[in-house]
Amino acid sequence: MAEQYIFEMEIAVRDYELDSEGIVNNANYLHYLEYTRHEFCASVGISFKEMQLRGITPVLNKVEIEYKNSLRSGDVMVSKLWIEISGPRFLFYQDIFNKTTGLLCVHAIVSCVCLENGKLSRGVTLAKLFEKYLKQ
Amino acid sequence: MAEQYIFEMEIAVRDYELDSEGIVNNANYLHYLEYTRHEFCASVGISFKEMQLRGITPVLNKVEIEYKNSLRSGDVMVSKLWIEISGPRFLFYQDIFNKTTGLLCVHAIVSCVCLENGKLSRGVTLAKLFEKYLKQ
Amino acid sequence: MAEQYIFEMEIAVRDYELDSEGIVNNANYLHYLEYTRHEFCASVGISFKEMQLRGITPVLNKVEIEYKNSLRSGDVMVSKLWIEISGPRFLFYQDIFNKTTGLLCVHAIVSCVCLENGKLSRGVTLAKLFEKYLKQ
Amino acid sequence: MAEQYIFEMEIAVRDYELDSEGIVNNANYLHYLEYTRHEFCASVGISFKEMQLRGITPVLNKVEIEYKNSLRSGDVMVSKLWIEISGPRFLFYQDIFNKTTGLLCVHAIVSCVCLENGKLSRGVTLAKLFEKYLKQ
Repeated sequence: MAEQYIFEMEIAVRDYELDSEGIVNNANYLHYLEYTRHEFCASVGISFKEMQLRGITPVLNKVEIEYKNSLRSGDVMVSKLWIEISGPRFLFYQDIFNKTTGLLCVHAIVSCVCLENGKLSRGVTLAKLFEKYLKQ
Repeated sequence: MAEQYIFEMEIAVRDYELDSEGIVNNANYLHYLEYTRHEFCASVGISFKEMQLRGITPVLNKVEIEYKNSLRSGDVMVSKLWIEISGPRFLFYQDIFNKTTGLLCVHAIVSCVCLENGKLSRGVTLAKLFEKYLKQ
Repeated sequence: MAEQYIFEMEIAVRDYELDSEGIVNNANYLHYLEYTRHEFCASVGISFKEMQLRGITPVLNKVEIEYKNSLRSGDVMVSKLWIEISGPRFLFYQDIFNKTTGLLCVHAIVSCVCLENGKLSRGVTLAKLFEKYLKQ
Repeated sequence: MAEQYIFEMEIAVRDYELDSEGIVNNANYLHYLEYTRHEFCASVGISFKEMQLRGITPVLNKVEIEYKNSLRSGDVMVSKLWIEISGPRFLFYQDIFNKTTGLLCVHAIVSCVCLENGKLSRGVTLAKLFEKYLKQ
């Protein structure tokens, strides 16, 4: 499904992200995924600061993450995503690959809802912002 | 399903775990969940060091985590779990509650497989260790 | 100088705080030190939330930390501190010991200044709060 | 003293590195500093893996860090260093600047010693590796 990706970026593993087994600690992948989403948003001109100013708060409500292959010291990953709307939810499909080997490291589905002025919205404002990036 | 929990512990939120919204960052819950699993294992006399010495490597292969209510500065959580075996997988069902309000903060299912001397095992050795804690 | 300590607490090492050498990563000690300061403040009824509400912002401006002995998986530390005022600065003298061996793990001097409503203050308000805990 | 820097790199702030005040948490600067040292070593062909294989273990023994100006969401830093040998110690002088404003964010002196096969060495092997980068 590579053809669906709408954004990708490279991220180098930093040694402090490793655990005592010499592999990236499982929680750090959630950092990579969040960082990728934020960079995607920034790349299309959607900043979290601005969303907050407009009373829009994206709220993470579910993450499903499969760990396929570990990343290690010196590795560089390619972090890719595409998005979908499912009812009131934004779904980010996110895959992280080892740049050198091409192996899939993690596959994740990250679900967000949108609060507008504190209330669950159908994300209309946000949907408009993301409109052209949504998979049809 | 509270009656199924076989282990629980309290964990205080530390301020460095908060993000700029003043709530615990999503990735830190994976730290809490891992810490709880390790403390559970330690409490029943199963140490990761010993597992490694015996050639057993538990490998996290999937996490499903739902974020229900945020934790904030000053909060104390109660982190609970029970376990199941599903084929070659160990499933940790893990819930984190706000100690004061009793609200469910996250619900997670954490799936592990077991490598014995580098090969996927049916986790027989580990299953024996956990035997009496498994839900029938 | 143990007799000068005015606060101490125990903190267990969590496995995700280890790095690939199997020892606690250097940056995590700053987390332990911060956590200890915050717990000390909470223990004497001084909350950061309240300080913020009163327009007081403590600002970390310098840390000197010496690493003496590493902490590892399963270790519990005893984190101790005392405080001093030096001109406009609050100095936290913080030592972390291995609970089992008694060995000093880190020795740190943490310097803070105080902003009141955005301006550097001589920390008079804060000094009053800490008055009885200050070394004479 | 900018003319003494022998290495520099850019690092973007990631939102998960912020704390509830919206500024980068103090401990994360130690991560940035470590990451910069490791990238410097990698850039000159000195890998930590190789050092370990050769029985050389660099050990951090002291960090002095001054916090001058905070980094925030969206900021990019320029992290620079130079090195000195002082007896058995390697000193890394490390400064982090806000790329946009040019302001100094942190100034740090990081002291390392060298263990060769478990014993404190005068770092002869390491000194040779770093020879051409040392300030005369």
